[in-house]
Amino acid sequence: MKGVFITIEGPDGAGKTTQIQGVTAFLQEKNIPFLSTREPGGDAIGTKIRELLLDPANGDMTPKTEAFLYAADRAQHVEQVILPALRKGVWVICDRFVDSQLAYQGAGRQLGQEDFLLPLNKLATDGLEPDVTFLLLVEAEEGLARVTETRGDSPDRMEREKIEFHERVCDGYRALAAENPERIVTLNGRNPIEEIQREIRNRLKPFLEK
Amino acid sequence: MKGVFITIEGPDGAGKTTQIQGVTAFLQEKNIPFLSTREPGGDAIGTKIRELLLDPANGDMTPKTEAFLYAADRAQHVEQVILPALRKGVWVICDRFVDSQLAYQGAGRQLGQEDFLLPLNKLATDGLEPDVTFLLLVEAEEGLARVTETRGDSPDRMEREKIEFHERVCDGYRALAAENPERIVTLNGRNPIEEIQREIRNRLKPFLEK
Repeated sequence: MKGVFITIEGPDGAGKTTQIQGVTAFLQEKNIPFLSTREPGGDAIGTKIRELLLDPANGDMTPKTEAFLYAADRAQHVEQVILPALRKGVWVICDRFVDSQLAYQGAGRQLGQEDFLLPLNKLATDGLEPDVTFLLLVEAEEGLARVTETRGDSPDRMEREKIEFHERVCDGYRALAAENPERIVTLNGRNPIEEIQREIRNRLKPFLEK
Repeated sequence: MKGVFITIEGPDGAGKTTQIQGVTAFLQEKNIPFLSTREPGGDAIGTKIRELLLDPANGDMTPKTEAFLYAADRAQHVEQVILPALRKGVWVICDRFVDSQLAYQGAGRQLGQEDFLLPLNKLATDGLEPDVTFLLLVEAEEGLARVTETRGDSPDRMEREKIEFHERVCDGYRALAAENPERIVTLNGRNPIEEIQREIRNRLKPFLEK
């Protein structure tokens, strides 16, 4: 018996957290043991790597170094957290996984994908892929607006400049969805929360019957 | 004009530091601009990664995660320190580089080399290889004895147990030297310091004439 590996992807402000809560409620109802985790920073070492990644003092960190640190976190997370759970038949719901790195670093920061990020992640995950990925998409501008709304302030100049970056991220996600139609389920983040959750649960049903 | 990239390798206690001092003295005499550096921890971010690697609190770090952290350090070091120097015509002497990881993690800790460490390092170095590598070898037992002698105490049970590990490291280094006879110069660390240094300087002469 092997657990099902579910990942949730999408830009900030697309509604990932709300939908993850819906999925965990659903699994609880169905009496399915599950583990809810996230990247980066799924365990103690991951948390330290996350601190290193987010520390503004490390401003001269190259995008490649950053990629290796994400990979270090991912290797630890896969080997120590995700795989042991799946092997015990526990389902795993992970907030962000390889697709995030491909969208943010690959498309957003334009770091080589075919020749760098894909082989790097193959080494980090040992080839583990999600059984299903739910990708929540909203337009870059709307996602950013939702984030600032939650924080209760308005987007400043810096954030406006970031829109171009976020547009590349969204385009990157769309390209991934087009390349992996079997695995990635694209959901419109503008739809009502309940409607999105209904679609997610429908897509999870075949896994319950296995 | 491009600088020459020299690495010094070998187990602890083989005499690397003494020989590096000899090389830098030699380059100074010849009026050659050089940079002396080391791995892990060649710059500010590298130092933080090194702290993470050496922190005993991170005992459950997997060898693979460790490998990615070394690679993160190396990617930063190559891109920010080594390559900019070489491009300016500055010679670079680096205390440990990829060969250390292949010997310690590959042979010593028996982490896959062909399928993991080699492709990982190709991504981290962007294919950069040393022009020449000086490998100082002593028997595992002797190297360990020299280290404890320097510290002024005698090897304890733990250290005796480590001999098997250190023997695998030395075997790993020997295998690397056999595979890369053009690049790696193997030196017997039991020879007198001056004799070893003479051999190193002889092997550097052709680079001076270029």
